[in-house]
Amino acid sequence: MRALTVRPGTPNDVELSDLPEPDDAQGRVLVQGLAIGICGTDREIVAGDYGEAPPGADRLVLGHEGLGRVLQDSSGELSAGDLVVGFVRRPDPVPCVNCAAGEWDMCRNGRYTEHGIKALHGFGAERYRLEPDRLVRVDQSLEATGVLLEPTSVVAKAWDQIERIGARAHGRPHRVLVTGAGPIGLLAALLAVQRDLEVHVLDQVTDGPKPGLVADLGATYHAAPGTVPEEVDVVVECTGAAQLVFDLMRRTAHNGIVCLTGVSSAGRRLTVDGGAINRELVLENDVVFGSVNANRRHYEAAAAALATADPAWLARLITRRVPLSEYADVLRQRPTDVKVVLEL
Amino acid sequence: MRALTVRPGTPNDVELSDLPEPDDAQGRVLVQGLAIGICGTDREIVAGDYGEAPPGADRLVLGHEGLGRVLQDSSGELSAGDLVVGFVRRPDPVPCVNCAAGEWDMCRNGRYTEHGIKALHGFGAERYRLEPDRLVRVDQSLEATGVLLEPTSVVAKAWDQIERIGARAHGRPHRVLVTGAGPIGLLAALLAVQRDLEVHVLDQVTDGPKPGLVADLGATYHAAPGTVPEEVDVVVECTGAAQLVFDLMRRTAHNGIVCLTGVSSAGRRLTVDGGAINRELVLENDVVFGSVNANRRHYEAAAAALATADPAWLARLITRRVPLSEYADVLRQRPTDVKVVLEL
Repeated sequence: MRALTVRPGTPNDVELSDLPEPDDAQGRVLVQGLAIGICGTDREIVAGDYGEAPPGADRLVLGHEGLGRVLQDSSGELSAGDLVVGFVRRPDPVPCVNCAAGEWDMCRNGRYTEHGIKALHGFGAERYRLEPDRLVRVDQSLEATGVLLEPTSVVAKAWDQIERIGARAHGRPHRVLVTGAGPIGLLAALLAVQRDLEVHVLDQVTDGPKPGLVADLGATYHAAPGTVPEEVDVVVECTGAAQLVFDLMRRTAHNGIVCLTGVSSAGRRLTVDGGAINRELVLENDVVFGSVNANRRHYEAAAAALATADPAWLARLITRRVPLSEYADVLRQRPTDVKVVLEL
Repeated sequence: MRALTVRPGTPNDVELSDLPEPDDAQGRVLVQGLAIGICGTDREIVAGDYGEAPPGADRLVLGHEGLGRVLQDSSGELSAGDLVVGFVRRPDPVPCVNCAAGEWDMCRNGRYTEHGIKALHGFGAERYRLEPDRLVRVDQSLEATGVLLEPTSVVAKAWDQIERIGARAHGRPHRVLVTGAGPIGLLAALLAVQRDLEVHVLDQVTDGPKPGLVADLGATYHAAPGTVPEEVDVVVECTGAAQLVFDLMRRTAHNGIVCLTGVSSAGRRLTVDGGAINRELVLENDVVFGSVNANRRHYEAAAAALATADPAWLARLITRRVPLSEYADVLRQRPTDVKVVLEL
């Protein structure tokens, strides 16, 4: 069977490999891969900057944003034809306290593995096997857009943490700023609109699909920071742009929360007014926190969020669908891309 | 009666003023001022950089770290002879959602006033009046050290917030780093030891009382960052030194929490690896937050913490006690000072 593989650590060593059928020992559920979404982490792995092959292997099957269909399940928990998405992260056999509680996204010891990223093959294969407890079932109506489940789970985790941290004081947020109108930013804005919040989205472009996607959510699009209201209760930062991250630490209202979801590269040195940032964080009881990955609760919340969203709006997030044979094309980002999907 | 007053905005315009006896309208409890503690905020106010006189006044009575004795209480709630400490912050008559819930330390609209700081006279007077609900009673055993209650309430608030934010995931912290061995740092370390945590305290000095005060708590003193263990679960930052604040953002374990309590001045520009800080916050689910002020719960928790601490250790925190007539001396900081107290 065919699978999209890379050699971690070697730039641009990507190919369609012919792999043996998945081993029964990998899990009782045989899944037909339907699609994978491509994100910045995939491009980092292709560039050789990130990623780790499974033990004993020198190549890694790419793809952590999966969508598949059950072909058979010897456990009886799932039925042939079910649409499923595999969890990215798998706890270590000797789990930390969070992994043991199923909250592997908050792993304390770092000994997790991740499909398509860290020591576990990804979902970019025609077939793969998983145990049923490593999969979440998705409504059949999401056949075209269920590949968005994994990025939606990431923002569901972010919102879960915003709400848990927000519970340190009374009062719910009113105004939210999302920075970056890529897939994560747009899905973060979707979940904010579903929470009845006033939503602003900041990006740099004035053309392409992003302004319209934001407007059609009922949110306000800003192509420059100057038009964003002065005080926002919550910021969901989805660009990883270091200067913006530090500017945002001074933009919140009292008790403000800045949730960082964008992974930036080390070595972006910049000059900041550290005194003013510290002073405002203290005197306003502000919080800045990072959020990564997602657990079962978040995948389930994400599945519910996608099922209640406008299907036409979700479909517009996927700006290109590329067949497996043209994989090279999906790895090259175009200015008007939102989410690009590789069809298996 | 005599009171220590300043002219906010005018550097070093500080004097012992002869003020009329406190007006009955200010509250049913007449308090004899026993002592005020002096902190960095007081010195900022004396320097003319901070502070606001009450409406219609041009001078502000200094002192937000108070200790007093009830002379009479026409409400009947307190008895003559009770030791009491007044809350610093008073909510606006039209309170925000947090102020309405008694959590004025998390005020969302900034329309609070603060005794000795912002638009309310402080406790640096021979007598003052307050309503009984603006005072907390302190155990008689704390006559010598009850003036430490207000700074202890600030760290009780910080620990309350650390625990509320920590509840976003499973697992309790094990190792804590406190930066700065001034009164706030030492009291933060005391509350950490009372929580059975492994406590490290980082300061710069090798002589004076600080190393011994830390050791006698059962904590480990470090005079340089190099000896502090690599990964700490919680940092309580009590210096306000901007470079240190940003260095600490990269020092925590997974799910680490950095609590900022030190108020620094704006204009401290520094160069940071913003990419690396953002990346580590995200990939490790780390939190950085600011904490200021305290509410009744925290004053009560602080009173309990002081009542169970070693009285001799607490007494050693007060390195100088100065009579009111020598107020100028208390405002000049000496290298070996921990907490200095003005006796009224």
